[in-house]
Amino acid sequence: MRYPEAVEELIEYFRRLPGVGRRGAERMALALAEWESENQRMFGLCAARLPEKVSRCPECGALADAGKSCDICSDIRRDGSILCVVEDLPQLFAVEKGNVYRGKYLVLGGRISPLDGEDGSGLNLELLKKRAADPEVKELILALSPDVEGRATAAYLTELLSGLPVKLTRPALGLPAGSNLSFADGATITAAFSNRTAVE
Amino acid sequence: MRYPEAVEELIEYFRRLPGVGRRGAERMALALAEWESENQRMFGLCAARLPEKVSRCPECGALADAGKSCDICSDIRRDGSILCVVEDLPQLFAVEKGNVYRGKYLVLGGRISPLDGEDGSGLNLELLKKRAADPEVKELILALSPDVEGRATAAYLTELLSGLPVKLTRPALGLPAGSNLSFADGATITAAFSNRTAVE
Repeated sequence: MRYPEAVEELIEYFRRLPGVGRRGAERMALALAEWESENQRMFGLCAARLPEKVSRCPECGALADAGKSCDICSDIRRDGSILCVVEDLPQLFAVEKGNVYRGKYLVLGGRISPLDGEDGSGLNLELLKKRAADPEVKELILALSPDVEGRATAAYLTELLSGLPVKLTRPALGLPAGSNLSFADGATITAAFSNRTAVE
Repeated sequence: MRYPEAVEELIEYFRRLPGVGRRGAERMALALAEWESENQRMFGLCAARLPEKVSRCPECGALADAGKSCDICSDIRRDGSILCVVEDLPQLFAVEKGNVYRGKYLVLGGRISPLDGEDGSGLNLELLKKRAADPEVKELILALSPDVEGRATAAYLTELLSGLPVKLTRPALGLPAGSNLSFADGATITAAFSNRTAVE
């Protein structure tokens, strides 16, 4: 027994999505195969039309409606003198959730990870250099994840941008809000205690 | 900041798939939006063409290539005198994995679950009654899951088929192979000890 050919093809495509294994892909493809025809067609068209509907924002590299700048780059109320460098869109949304950052972004499109064969060639480095060299931009926040690869990427970017007059910063390390101190690792404790703040 | 419109639409579709929440759907839609155009189109066409490519096997109700009987129903080496009733395709594949069953199947298309509003109206009951009444069919294995809803469904089917001369059976309850006895629940132990077999 095998799946119908069209289902088998879908399973292969679903497996390429993040966090989806063979079993998950099978469940999804089988469920999709049971949808009403109209929804199957609409979903399929929606995916097939992505190339015409979505493109990269020319200013920050984020996904945007085709041919347009993204919402943030086209928002004149956002402060163009600060640029926050993030790896990808989910990280951009995470920063937005904080509701404190009012500058603009640059979406790197990944991180440097030699073990996965990511040497930085796929990153938006040209766009980053161009934006960082813009005299309007005064500060560049390297908001990479504070893990091994994120730190390696931040170090690489620091090197890359070393000649420019822009100020490089990074988010503070410390205890996550709402966390239990007993679960904090050594590096986090070190950072949290070294940078302790006065109780007001 | 919001996602491009086409991405937002895809997120809504992905969320309808089993085991996919809002976060997972976002990750998948964003990843799909980064695929190469050609793959986006192929994947989309594959989904959009499901209505023409896939239909139900007229003999057992499983998904099959459009207009055809499924592999098992069209396999003349399979024993047509036994019919194994399963809820859905993943369960059919699970039975096939056992590599011992050589009869045919009937895919019910779900289970009876009053709490979820599933009263059996969406199940392949007409097909089941027709097949069960076929004089060629001598035995019907009710291979529903041994949980509350599976047992309710099995009881309902037993009632439904009570007038027919077909023999109704169900898979044995007992300890799962490779399991640790200390994790077995009371009902499983009861079944495993009541139906204990001689050591040869």
